[in-house]
Amino acid sequence: MTAVEALQRMANKTLSGSEYLASCFDRIHQREGKVQAWECLAAPQAVSHGTGLLQNIPVGIKDIYDTRDFPTRWGTEYIRCDRSVSDASPVALLKNAGAFVMGKTVSTEFAYFSPGKTRNPYDLDRTPGGSSSGSAAAVADGMVPIALGTQTAGSITRPASYCNVIGFKPTYGLISRAGIKSFSETLDTVGYFARSVNDIALVHAALTCTQFAPLARLDLAGLKIGVIRVPSDGDLDRDVEGALDRTCQRLSAEGVAITSSLDHARELDRLVELQSLVMAFESSRCLADVYFQHADDMSDKLREILERGFAITLDEYYGARQEAERLQSRVAPLFKEVDLLLSPSAVNVAPLASGISTGDPLYSRAWTLLGLPTISLPIESGHHGMPVGMQLIAPRYRDSVLLGYSHELLARLGRYARALDE
Amino acid sequence: MTAVEALQRMANKTLSGSEYLASCFDRIHQREGKVQAWECLAAPQAVSHGTGLLQNIPVGIKDIYDTRDFPTRWGTEYIRCDRSVSDASPVALLKNAGAFVMGKTVSTEFAYFSPGKTRNPYDLDRTPGGSSSGSAAAVADGMVPIALGTQTAGSITRPASYCNVIGFKPTYGLISRAGIKSFSETLDTVGYFARSVNDIALVHAALTCTQFAPLARLDLAGLKIGVIRVPSDGDLDRDVEGALDRTCQRLSAEGVAITSSLDHARELDRLVELQSLVMAFESSRCLADVYFQHADDMSDKLREILERGFAITLDEYYGARQEAERLQSRVAPLFKEVDLLLSPSAVNVAPLASGISTGDPLYSRAWTLLGLPTISLPIESGHHGMPVGMQLIAPRYRDSVLLGYSHELLARLGRYARALDE
Repeated sequence: MTAVEALQRMANKTLSGSEYLASCFDRIHQREGKVQAWECLAAPQAVSHGTGLLQNIPVGIKDIYDTRDFPTRWGTEYIRCDRSVSDASPVALLKNAGAFVMGKTVSTEFAYFSPGKTRNPYDLDRTPGGSSSGSAAAVADGMVPIALGTQTAGSITRPASYCNVIGFKPTYGLISRAGIKSFSETLDTVGYFARSVNDIALVHAALTCTQFAPLARLDLAGLKIGVIRVPSDGDLDRDVEGALDRTCQRLSAEGVAITSSLDHARELDRLVELQSLVMAFESSRCLADVYFQHADDMSDKLREILERGFAITLDEYYGARQEAERLQSRVAPLFKEVDLLLSPSAVNVAPLASGISTGDPLYSRAWTLLGLPTISLPIESGHHGMPVGMQLIAPRYRDSVLLGYSHELLARLGRYARALDE
Repeated sequence: MTAVEALQRMANKTLSGSEYLASCFDRIHQREGKVQAWECLAAPQAVSHGTGLLQNIPVGIKDIYDTRDFPTRWGTEYIRCDRSVSDASPVALLKNAGAFVMGKTVSTEFAYFSPGKTRNPYDLDRTPGGSSSGSAAAVADGMVPIALGTQTAGSITRPASYCNVIGFKPTYGLISRAGIKSFSETLDTVGYFARSVNDIALVHAALTCTQFAPLARLDLAGLKIGVIRVPSDGDLDRDVEGALDRTCQRLSAEGVAITSSLDHARELDRLVELQSLVMAFESSRCLADVYFQHADDMSDKLREILERGFAITLDEYYGARQEAERLQSRVAPLFKEVDLLLSPSAVNVAPLASGISTGDPLYSRAWTLLGLPTISLPIESGHHGMPVGMQLIAPRYRDSVLLGYSHELLARLGRYARALDE
């Protein structure tokens, strides 16, 4: 059941708020031992107090968001805040809209690459992706309809792809990050997971303080989508390649004009490198105190990027930022040729690497640096029948347009059906 | 004594670290009853443990920065954090460079307009400016050589001007804000106060993890400075007008080419309005939880901007951001005609309004939205002989060039000499 469906049933009085919350708690108690999506949970007897757009809707919050009612661990064993003074801005806005915070979801260590305990609900031996691991897995597993994450490289898009859910990253800077632990201020972006685009639109309305109306069906005639792979020479698993081809065929059959002759490969490829440099430089500054206090406690992966960041010179960083700005203008004309871009969400299906790796964010890096809104739609499958998401990318500030088309495309193509790993 | 002078004396063994710290503590104990620059102070027996560029240099930290060793109050009576889990990034970097954190300096309420207790050291009946009130006053009064602040509208430039100190705001995004309370993510910028440009350069080196070398004398032949007032129709006190004219004459006499025929007034004026809109919208999101919890506790000024922010539609905000981006490109050619821009730092001298108002940030708004590095130099005076700063503005990423010229210009023009109010 999606949040919008639950809200309809609550409005019709065929479901009470407490019944709905109890059903989510039941699901968590049934499955949490296997999926391990949560760092901490609300007390089962807790009730929602707010009223509004999300009244009685349980949400999961990635454990790098400050919360007044839950501890925050940032995916670490070595630091902890029992209760924050304030809720992070998105948490406050959701609660103010009536949402019930179900708990904090597992993050990788400071939202970087070192995995937490969470397993992929579709194959418990596989990673759910990261860094928003618990949020994606909890939504995939039906524990909550909605969860918040963040993306710095590919931390919304990749777990959404691996876990067969929708992952939406709005335009950079639109949703306040106040109270969320920073990793890279140029890149960090709030994003959300759900099982329907209407639920994504519902969260988006609550977080942008706008009205919500269920998304309307759209005519696809005239819609132009450009197929693109960034980086152009990135290793893409053959089955993901196949899934991309199938998606293009299915879109064409729906009347969408597909073009794959887009240029700007050189600029876009370069953006992938620049994203990596900016992320390393800024992470070392954002986590300076953690590094100075806990270099010996942290994972090798985290220490490595922080030390790489400290080794980048200021001139290199300045150069990267200026080059990224120039490239941003140079690639903007892409959206004169097409309405949306289409790319695989990840290079592969979720690897058999739970506890070791969360996969590769390669195909998200450029879009994150460009600050463009992206959505991963759970419409395809690859190796071993595991889910594969397809990513749509829109011009900046066209978040609503992206959600509108995504709703229509998902309705036509259908969510990929695969049984959970029980 | 500046930090660089103190470091030289400590290197020469004519001053010990503990003697230097004790002298700063003495000054504070002598004057704090009048100036009231501090929220809390280190214990007098505390010693500096770090080594590096800033070894034994005491610094003041605006009370919106997270600190592990001091409480944080954000300029409020209604919320408090006893000890943060981590130091804010700039605090960690200064401590890692050996700096001694002397304490937390008074901020206006959440760095907005509602004043704290601090008085202007040059006239105790006047405001020190805000929001970085305590940092500017503590440096002006000789309590510490260096203090950190932030600027969202004019919170570095204006208090620097009112307090006869140097206030430097680096290029937007250069210094990490991780662990600093957000007010407006598009605008918030770390800045620093000192009594010499070399001290500013010293802090800048520590915060950017670069080498420090004392700034060299420069030849001014060929330097082109454009005089500009943004907004073009802003009320400027006649005595500040006079100070600007004198500055232009003095610069001409030093061989600087001054031009006042710069265009782009319409675009720059519009940026002032857009800054105000972006700031209000974003403040309501950044302080969402504070508003939901403490609307009745907060000042009318703060509540008013948050409610104004919530009333701005998403389309207006999107529109403002897009327009600001377009204007940013349109005004960039200004720096093809000149090397630096010159503007008054504030519309007036510090008003007789201690405890009521912190003055008007009007002449800083556009530069903050453009993300340009700015410095306020304490070289002039106005009404009642109170200090007036002159603001130099450089292209983005030209922070070092700005510091280099500022050092030379301050050396030639001299810091405005006025006795403190004893």
